[in-house]
Amino acid sequence: MKFDLLTRDGSTRRGRLQLTHGVVETPTFMPVGTAATVKGLTPEEVREAHSQILLSNTYHLWLRPGREIIEQAGGLHRFMNWDGPILTDSGGFQVFSLQERRKLDEDGVTFKSHLDGSMHRFTPETVIAFEEALGVDIAMVLDVCVKLPASQAELEESVRLTTAWAKRAAAARAKPEATAVFAIMQGGLDERLRERSARDLVELDFPGYAIGGLSVGETREEMYHAARFSAALLPEDKPRYLMGVGTVKDIVMAVECGIDMFDCVYPTRCGRNGRAMTRAGEFHIKNATYTRDFTPLDPTCDCYVCTKYTRAYLSHLFRSDEMLGPRLLSYHNVYILNDLMREARTAIEQGSWASFRDRVLS
Amino acid sequence: MKFDLLTRDGSTRRGRLQLTHGVVETPTFMPVGTAATVKGLTPEEVREAHSQILLSNTYHLWLRPGREIIEQAGGLHRFMNWDGPILTDSGGFQVFSLQERRKLDEDGVTFKSHLDGSMHRFTPETVIAFEEALGVDIAMVLDVCVKLPASQAELEESVRLTTAWAKRAAAARAKPEATAVFAIMQGGLDERLRERSARDLVELDFPGYAIGGLSVGETREEMYHAARFSAALLPEDKPRYLMGVGTVKDIVMAVECGIDMFDCVYPTRCGRNGRAMTRAGEFHIKNATYTRDFTPLDPTCDCYVCTKYTRAYLSHLFRSDEMLGPRLLSYHNVYILNDLMREARTAIEQGSWASFRDRVLS
Repeated sequence: MKFDLLTRDGSTRRGRLQLTHGVVETPTFMPVGTAATVKGLTPEEVREAHSQILLSNTYHLWLRPGREIIEQAGGLHRFMNWDGPILTDSGGFQVFSLQERRKLDEDGVTFKSHLDGSMHRFTPETVIAFEEALGVDIAMVLDVCVKLPASQAELEESVRLTTAWAKRAAAARAKPEATAVFAIMQGGLDERLRERSARDLVELDFPGYAIGGLSVGETREEMYHAARFSAALLPEDKPRYLMGVGTVKDIVMAVECGIDMFDCVYPTRCGRNGRAMTRAGEFHIKNATYTRDFTPLDPTCDCYVCTKYTRAYLSHLFRSDEMLGPRLLSYHNVYILNDLMREARTAIEQGSWASFRDRVLS
Repeated sequence: MKFDLLTRDGSTRRGRLQLTHGVVETPTFMPVGTAATVKGLTPEEVREAHSQILLSNTYHLWLRPGREIIEQAGGLHRFMNWDGPILTDSGGFQVFSLQERRKLDEDGVTFKSHLDGSMHRFTPETVIAFEEALGVDIAMVLDVCVKLPASQAELEESVRLTTAWAKRAAAARAKPEATAVFAIMQGGLDERLRERSARDLVELDFPGYAIGGLSVGETREEMYHAARFSAALLPEDKPRYLMGVGTVKDIVMAVECGIDMFDCVYPTRCGRNGRAMTRAGEFHIKNATYTRDFTPLDPTCDCYVCTKYTRAYLSHLFRSDEMLGPRLLSYHNVYILNDLMREARTAIEQGSWASFRDRVLS
């Protein structure tokens, strides 16, 4: 893996990430393919919508279909027919969301599958081995993620254990040429803890760093503040990834904080639920006003959906519970978010970030 | 509209139908797009799967989104982004399935919407006007469809009224150049009634004829017998359409009866439910045996799905309730059925129908 910071405009960064399966221009948005599929879309469509890298989930793939089947298929890329870069999260976030169904100890975490109640165990080593077996380009370390608000003791413990586990994950790497392992910073909204987390992880010299433990219950302002504070603690020459973000506004604010990578189910979940993302804002396609609206979802968008279909037709599909509706709207939402990232990259290159940001947020 | 009977092999027919929106080689299968969408597929995919003509439903489109919206969109083709031929059924079959929710009289039928309970009325004239407003290539007349078994009196009445209505539909035609109106034969399994229905309708000289009132409760053998008997009553130089058929076996048997056109939700409904159609027979993708099967759905199929995905991956998608599963399986099923029709046409051209039929049915 190689990361080049090409240029900056204020605190924003324009970079290039070279991974085993291809090049990723940053800042970039990663659509989420939880179960080895970006819901409703083929990999060819994900690519056509200008996605450069996908995210998939260790937790879900571990449980179903499981490591053996993906390995027998020749790895995750061949299994799901996507030949571009893939990042897998470590499952930390999902496992800690299980609450009573998981038990944490110094060595790892034992949990009950939400699918069939079977017991499983993640350790820093088993998670890295799983991600390497999948053959992904970027593997996240197993972290201890805390929901906010949290006690000081919980936050301190999550930082301590996440760092200890990151060290073990780094030592467990067997394929560093193929799979780059990124560490995850914790610390909630506590600046002293964020500093400690960053310092200890940076010392371990990972090829990239994620800012974890945000977008988990705090306000937006708190999140922006913590993201900005955290990003500034990370080395300039390594990619920075803000996990679980998000909406157009959140992404723009995060780019402004000096972040390079984002992932979120937002565009595809909105797409399935009938929520259209456009340059003029969001709207719900099932609202009565769109049944006779023969304009495209977004007149400024040149995607397949906007060039071929009207709001009236999409409204009809959603009102009729037709599968094609969620499919087309998911495609458009991913496309327009990727388009926004492309515009953001151009704005940074041209030194016009501030006016781009103001235009998008207005 | 123009129909050329190109060649025959025994009782099978190889023809060519020239319609307003394109040429259809027969025998042909028409995938069903009930609500102005072939469930889960884009029109480009329907075309790529070698479909030549789609079927859509007057009953469903009348209720939602309604005539006005489709007209404002510029017709059904523009509304749904399909520029090839479309046939609409008349809604007769759907309305008569409503049972207590409809009331038949000499002039037409009044019914209650299954969506919101609102009252609507079909007459031969309003149905033709609706189909012409949609701008379809082939419009079916409003018929009186009877579920089998039925009393002799019911069958006689359905034949009488269907013919009377066909006459009125013919007189109501306003755009005969753009939209060809096909009549529908009734008569259940009663040969005398089938003869009467055919004789009276043929006298009215429609550009094409459908065999209706089959696949509505009778056995398969009864259906084949009635289809063969009915087809022989129709003029050689007009296209023949067997409504609501079907499976691979039913279609092959119907081609053997001298039928040219078929429609059925079978391949797309199977696709959504996980039932794969292959040259070696059908199977359910969720069966345990396929979770580790890294071969394509059908090794003899060259469709997108069979060249890019394994049974193991499709099995995973269905087990995970992922939208992409129904989508990919629907595509494959439509593709392979169209492929079968292409092979059938070649077999008829080459005079090798009998061996083709035996191979497919074995």
